[in-house]
Amino acid sequence: MNQFINARDTLVTDAIDGLLETSGDTLTRLDGYPHIKVVCRADWDKSRVALISGGGSGHEPAHAGFVGAGMLTAAVCGEVFASPSVDAVLAGILAVTGKAGCLLIVKNYTGDRLNFGLAAERARAFGLNVAMVIVDDDIALPHLPQPRGVAGTLFVHKIAGDLAENGADLTTVRAAAEQTIAAMASIGMSLDTCTVPGSIKEDRIPRGKAELGLGIHGEAGVEQVGFEGARSAMDMVLDKLGARIASGTYVAILNNLGSTTPLEMSILAHELATSPKAENIRHVIGPAPLMTSLDMHGFSVSVLPVDAASTAHLAAPVDLSAWPGVATLGTVKTRPLPDGLSPIQPIPSANDKTAGIIAHCCDLLIAAEDDLNALDAKSGDGDTGNTLTTAARALKDALPRMPLADLTQLFRAISNELSQTMGGSSGVILAIFFGATGDACASGRPTPKALMAGLDRISQVGGAQKGDRTMVDALEPALSALPRGIAAAAAAARAGADATAAMGRAKAGRASYVPEENLLGHNDPGAEAVARLFEGLAKAM
Amino acid sequence: MNQFINARDTLVTDAIDGLLETSGDTLTRLDGYPHIKVVCRADWDKSRVALISGGGSGHEPAHAGFVGAGMLTAAVCGEVFASPSVDAVLAGILAVTGKAGCLLIVKNYTGDRLNFGLAAERARAFGLNVAMVIVDDDIALPHLPQPRGVAGTLFVHKIAGDLAENGADLTTVRAAAEQTIAAMASIGMSLDTCTVPGSIKEDRIPRGKAELGLGIHGEAGVEQVGFEGARSAMDMVLDKLGARIASGTYVAILNNLGSTTPLEMSILAHELATSPKAENIRHVIGPAPLMTSLDMHGFSVSVLPVDAASTAHLAAPVDLSAWPGVATLGTVKTRPLPDGLSPIQPIPSANDKTAGIIAHCCDLLIAAEDDLNALDAKSGDGDTGNTLTTAARALKDALPRMPLADLTQLFRAISNELSQTMGGSSGVILAIFFGATGDACASGRPTPKALMAGLDRISQVGGAQKGDRTMVDALEPALSALPRGIAAAAAAARAGADATAAMGRAKAGRASYVPEENLLGHNDPGAEAVARLFEGLAKAM
Repeated sequence: MNQFINARDTLVTDAIDGLLETSGDTLTRLDGYPHIKVVCRADWDKSRVALISGGGSGHEPAHAGFVGAGMLTAAVCGEVFASPSVDAVLAGILAVTGKAGCLLIVKNYTGDRLNFGLAAERARAFGLNVAMVIVDDDIALPHLPQPRGVAGTLFVHKIAGDLAENGADLTTVRAAAEQTIAAMASIGMSLDTCTVPGSIKEDRIPRGKAELGLGIHGEAGVEQVGFEGARSAMDMVLDKLGARIASGTYVAILNNLGSTTPLEMSILAHELATSPKAENIRHVIGPAPLMTSLDMHGFSVSVLPVDAASTAHLAAPVDLSAWPGVATLGTVKTRPLPDGLSPIQPIPSANDKTAGIIAHCCDLLIAAEDDLNALDAKSGDGDTGNTLTTAARALKDALPRMPLADLTQLFRAISNELSQTMGGSSGVILAIFFGATGDACASGRPTPKALMAGLDRISQVGGAQKGDRTMVDALEPALSALPRGIAAAAAAARAGADATAAMGRAKAGRASYVPEENLLGHNDPGAEAVARLFEGLAKAM
Repeated sequence: MNQFINARDTLVTDAIDGLLETSGDTLTRLDGYPHIKVVCRADWDKSRVALISGGGSGHEPAHAGFVGAGMLTAAVCGEVFASPSVDAVLAGILAVTGKAGCLLIVKNYTGDRLNFGLAAERARAFGLNVAMVIVDDDIALPHLPQPRGVAGTLFVHKIAGDLAENGADLTTVRAAAEQTIAAMASIGMSLDTCTVPGSIKEDRIPRGKAELGLGIHGEAGVEQVGFEGARSAMDMVLDKLGARIASGTYVAILNNLGSTTPLEMSILAHELATSPKAENIRHVIGPAPLMTSLDMHGFSVSVLPVDAASTAHLAAPVDLSAWPGVATLGTVKTRPLPDGLSPIQPIPSANDKTAGIIAHCCDLLIAAEDDLNALDAKSGDGDTGNTLTTAARALKDALPRMPLADLTQLFRAISNELSQTMGGSSGVILAIFFGATGDACASGRPTPKALMAGLDRISQVGGAQKGDRTMVDALEPALSALPRGIAAAAAAARAGADATAAMGRAKAGRASYVPEENLLGHNDPGAEAVARLFEGLAKAM
């Protein structure tokens, strides 16, 4: 088991109970565990049309997460990816349906059709007014006689839910649901399949590929396409939807299929908002997980043409944390940077030798990127190489505007450059280092002594001393040896860096959070970077 | 690249723009891309204390997702897991701070301390009233002098945010933030590490283990512990928090660290709600992703003792879809099942031979579970074996109350049993099959003919004909051959099942969504189940 469940046969009932316990008593359920899993509004009085949806579990927050005033009256939950039984659906219908009748909102899967359909027949035998709509918004398989129901289901829940909440009769609610279903279209894309609890995950999608037109039960996509990033992914999805977007105003659902990070979902939202193919899409619901497929790493887009009435139904507020609301898709509004940020720009001056040394230092760091990342992965987040390389590239680019002929101004300019472009703790520490070095140059100290003054300052601000397993362990011996020449400095830096591998306990920086056994035997990445720098310089001189 | 990003160096700016574009113009940003990434409230007029937070990206919705009335005034965003630069923080401070001053809410990481701290010093030089609090709620490393800031940060954002929104002065807001920080505690657990964009994912946590006391930047946990499911996971987390939960009333944040499914989070919520160790926790924020670590498969719990005032600050509504609100932790309330569900119970009767045959059929299906799941994984969601095994176990358990001596009643009773326990399309189809078989028995047909009547009925309701790649392809030849004996039926079933491997196009059921190349060469799992059943029976008789 590598999921936060207790057992396969209690995972859905445990999850439903967790939902109820954190609902603030707005939800209740029928006493029918384990076979009958029906979640109901606690405040329901049968005075209006009841909306019932459901199906297999694994699509959370759908469907139980949308039970509440203005959306569903009840959700009938099956086991993971399995339709609930006829009896479970019948229990849900009988529990919440009053004189106004009920609407069953059913996704177009054989199991759901059969179970909801037979339950509806049995309920009608009790004299209840039961209507049923079949959601079939998936356009992945254009020639399939039975398109699947996917995330567009949420449009139906919300529009029908708002109508029912406001007292519309069953004929009106059903007609609005059917009109919505006929007009909407959805398609999804995924980079990986989902992990069904208790089953081995299928490794179906190779790296560099994505599945377009996937289902929400782990069904393979209609086609595997080359994956080239978020923009082309959204582009392919919008291409497929293009035939279903005519003139007029559209609302889109941007649905997270499971484990796509909020960062990725925001990037996809940006692509949706800026694509010329989506210019008729004026409003968006999400990005949010609405109709998931367990932990699938993918997204889907659903589109619906709207008028003032349907927009109002979608936008009506509901007190459900799973419902993200509707936002107007806008452009990015910026404000100018405040005054007071720009340091006085130094007057550029030339010195080919100095420029060459700096460029060489930058190249040495860039060449060491992967090794430093790998070392940092042992003790931190694996980005030391990235961080230094980014700064090195920026510094090389900045060389033409550097005061290369004036060491004092040059060190200060490097400090400014790093504080603006590098970020991270190393950025500030190096900015302080070069700033203090420049100050020491200004007061007339020779370069090795000035660099030592920089080192003193960062030990003071950052708190790291020699022996704390930081870059100080290589920098201090190197600068001490520097008056004896670059070769001596390089040897001292290497010895200092290698000594960090035996330091089991980091006393400063992020590595101090890491257990001893993860550190022993690996050089500190900052110290290693310093050693590589001095070794490379020694070789070149 | 196997993430929905465009490029590593634009992923944070793309994501921020996506957030702004879907914010309904409630957010704006400073015009300082790529180095200065500051998200601000669009409606901010500097009339009250400004709240500024931020840090490395990769923790979404923190921090930009919490910018809005009643929470943050601005968020300063770094690259993934890297602190923003001094200039970026300074720009944020200068942009939103008025006469009432600002409070910087900073998580306790060296980089954030350095950058926010230096920026605060520079801003004070402009005459601004800048206060800073350091969030250090992580209790994973009790002896660390510098505990990390993790999801408890949200308590600070919300309590300080509500105070500031309502006009409290900087001294009051800062004191409330410091009091909150001193009182709260957090710890997390994860089953996997996170995927840093552009880096290779470290495979650090073996199957069956979990990391307790992890960081939110992919730092290794303090200890690897045996993972035995959701209950023991929550138990270990609450054990660690135990020393920080005294008498009084507590609020908990149940935070999704990234890719934990809503289903798992609800199960963890259930464990939190029902654990005797959490009885002083009366309110909960979440489960929800609040302070994530990219796609980490884990969760964290943060606790805070509250009084009426702090509860009111936490519960004050805000118009931010990322904020889930506060709910009172409750118990599950159930309603009795409605009348009309229970079919008339048959009178049990004995027939050892029939009981033996049924039990043997069930055992055959249970033995085939893994093989059938594997076949179904080629064309569906890999659960045919599970579904049949669950039904088979329920049927075996039900044997003592079956009318075994009366075939008509027995087939009807099996139909009822399957419609109550099996679920899924196969559950209904088999219920219809046995119900119609029972009806045919009642009208005097011999068993093979009665079974054929059952088959006719499911073809009619479910729409599957021979050649459509369903269980009908094995069942129809088997029942046709049955009058010639069980061995003939078994051979016919096997031939029929094997013939499905050459059927490239499924015409009914879930496999009809699957491309031809995935199906060819594999037997249909339903047909295979039928063949195994008849073969096993032939062997036993």
